[in-house]
Amino acid sequence: MRIFVNGTHAVHAGQQEMYRGRLVPCHEVPQRLDHVLAELERRPLAALEAAPPPSRAVLEKVHSPAYLRFLESAWAEWLALDPANQARDAFPSVWPVRGFRHDREPLNFAARMGLYSFDTGTPLTAGTWQAAWEGAGCAMAAARAVGTGGDAARAGVALTRPPGHHAGHDFFGGYCFINNAAVAAQTLRELGAKRVAVLDVDYHHGNGTQSIFYGRSDVLTVSIHGDPVTEYPFFLGHADETGEGDGVGCNINLPLPVGTGTADWMHALEAGVQHIRSHGAEALVVALGVDTFEGDPISSFTLASDDYLAIGRRLEAMKLPTVFTLEGGYAVEDFGVNVVNVLDGFRAAAVARAT
Amino acid sequence: MRIFVNGTHAVHAGQQEMYRGRLVPCHEVPQRLDHVLAELERRPLAALEAAPPPSRAVLEKVHSPAYLRFLESAWAEWLALDPANQARDAFPSVWPVRGFRHDREPLNFAARMGLYSFDTGTPLTAGTWQAAWEGAGCAMAAARAVGTGGDAARAGVALTRPPGHHAGHDFFGGYCFINNAAVAAQTLRELGAKRVAVLDVDYHHGNGTQSIFYGRSDVLTVSIHGDPVTEYPFFLGHADETGEGDGVGCNINLPLPVGTGTADWMHALEAGVQHIRSHGAEALVVALGVDTFEGDPISSFTLASDDYLAIGRRLEAMKLPTVFTLEGGYAVEDFGVNVVNVLDGFRAAAVARAT
Repeated sequence: MRIFVNGTHAVHAGQQEMYRGRLVPCHEVPQRLDHVLAELERRPLAALEAAPPPSRAVLEKVHSPAYLRFLESAWAEWLALDPANQARDAFPSVWPVRGFRHDREPLNFAARMGLYSFDTGTPLTAGTWQAAWEGAGCAMAAARAVGTGGDAARAGVALTRPPGHHAGHDFFGGYCFINNAAVAAQTLRELGAKRVAVLDVDYHHGNGTQSIFYGRSDVLTVSIHGDPVTEYPFFLGHADETGEGDGVGCNINLPLPVGTGTADWMHALEAGVQHIRSHGAEALVVALGVDTFEGDPISSFTLASDDYLAIGRRLEAMKLPTVFTLEGGYAVEDFGVNVVNVLDGFRAAAVARAT
Repeated sequence: MRIFVNGTHAVHAGQQEMYRGRLVPCHEVPQRLDHVLAELERRPLAALEAAPPPSRAVLEKVHSPAYLRFLESAWAEWLALDPANQARDAFPSVWPVRGFRHDREPLNFAARMGLYSFDTGTPLTAGTWQAAWEGAGCAMAAARAVGTGGDAARAGVALTRPPGHHAGHDFFGGYCFINNAAVAAQTLRELGAKRVAVLDVDYHHGNGTQSIFYGRSDVLTVSIHGDPVTEYPFFLGHADETGEGDGVGCNINLPLPVGTGTADWMHALEAGVQHIRSHGAEALVVALGVDTFEGDPISSFTLASDDYLAIGRRLEAMKLPTVFTLEGGYAVEDFGVNVVNVLDGFRAAAVARAT
């Protein structure tokens, strides 16, 4: 197992998000990743490595160049509007929903924030681009660590934030800016894997990943999540979304009702694993959210900390080169233990297999 | 001239709006209409009348039944989530932009707020439905006042707020919930006018009215407004939007650059008038915003108060039965004078014609 850590993740630190109609302190905070690192000090699994910068060419196979340029320049534009903005996160305030046009990019900054986003939960901060950019580097490094041939690691881990799985081809949202799971999957494709699967175990549907690969057969996307009828992101994630064009049959959604417990969740995982096997994936990306945890403040499933060890073991049993990207999980104090449990379960199973 | 006043407008009183990325006090406040009424006390143009409730059947030709049901029940749902919400306006926080689905209505309240909206500038308050509903009644009454035959008034005025021209078939936004101008136009059609024109003179593009009638040839929509490249609502209002299907050629946008002054604005008005003449409209709805005023805090044109008298005279010279609905204008102290100047200019020209 090789673990890549985004050393600059903490420069992305939003103050407030709009949640269910009002401003509240951000759920997605730097302390989340700090807890993972603290747990890895107690329970070391591998050396912690830095990653080189990402390949822009590969990033542009996942996100539109215009969107990346916008993210890169957004904070400077926000400051140029008013120096006092230094103390304020930037939020969009108007969105081109049905009937509006997307084909003419406005000059107005707030409008472009809306053009490239879909919610008000995702403040753009002074450090957002740097953290997201270096995080994409971690995702690519983790993919290269598992995808380069016979001496490759079985698992590559990208410990980074902001998370990624809600970010689409050209929009941010759900605390996500660059889709690290999609970046990892695309990198595995570039390295020669003919078919890749993304398995999203976050509580929330991986709408960004689904939409990025929706028309492609080379990347299977599987997501196990709270039913969007009641759970974020609400407007995608139903079971009848199975792909389009070349991608028909290559998107699998496994929505589960509010309150789902361990047995039913593990049953859905098993179904997801079988889909990945049927697809013939040569490599796996796990979009690792642990907001399925019983203590999560904005979710409803009831998995216990020990369950994450079992999840790690089950993922290892797929015997695929596996990249983990870090997604949601907002029970901050427990986040480190739960994430490391997945990785530790995977590691222990691999050791057991080897001996 | 007959003037209908929404006596309950003040029950819609938002506290804050998200404007260009942060929460600020609402621009669209009850005092706006109070200033119009105060000016009408100084300068009476007609008796002020109350209006009967609107026809739901006509409303449902402008807005979707599901949207109207949502608006009607929204505040009660918001309170049911948390009694403390009584003190808080409701805001959406996530929107189904490109790639998301609109065909499955979520159960979650915040999600439905997003499904039925397009910005965060438009707080939904305890009185929103009542004010919007009774406002639609004023718009219908004003249309009936001009559209019922030989003894009809030349002008019917709906003095109401919230405004309406940004509200689409099934979404609110831009301080608007029910599209009063569209309601008036539809009512004129129901009363027998074969062709109706809506002339939107608000600073901001009348995106809602455009989109409601975009596929219809019986209602010409003309809007004179700040160029959406830099001005709200940003994602609609370009000159190349001319209608679709049966409505091809029946939408006219006249965007003007930031800083446009009286001469250029009046030139655009003349162009709009010619389009309405060519269309053969038998009745006119004026979406009357006066945020083209030089003192407006969120707009950039430089019309002076006296210009509104000239605008009223020019509108009267079209010799059409004319309904006025009240739209934007956020220089609150001047709003009454500017609105009444338009009406007074119209009245004076009509008197001059008759004598």
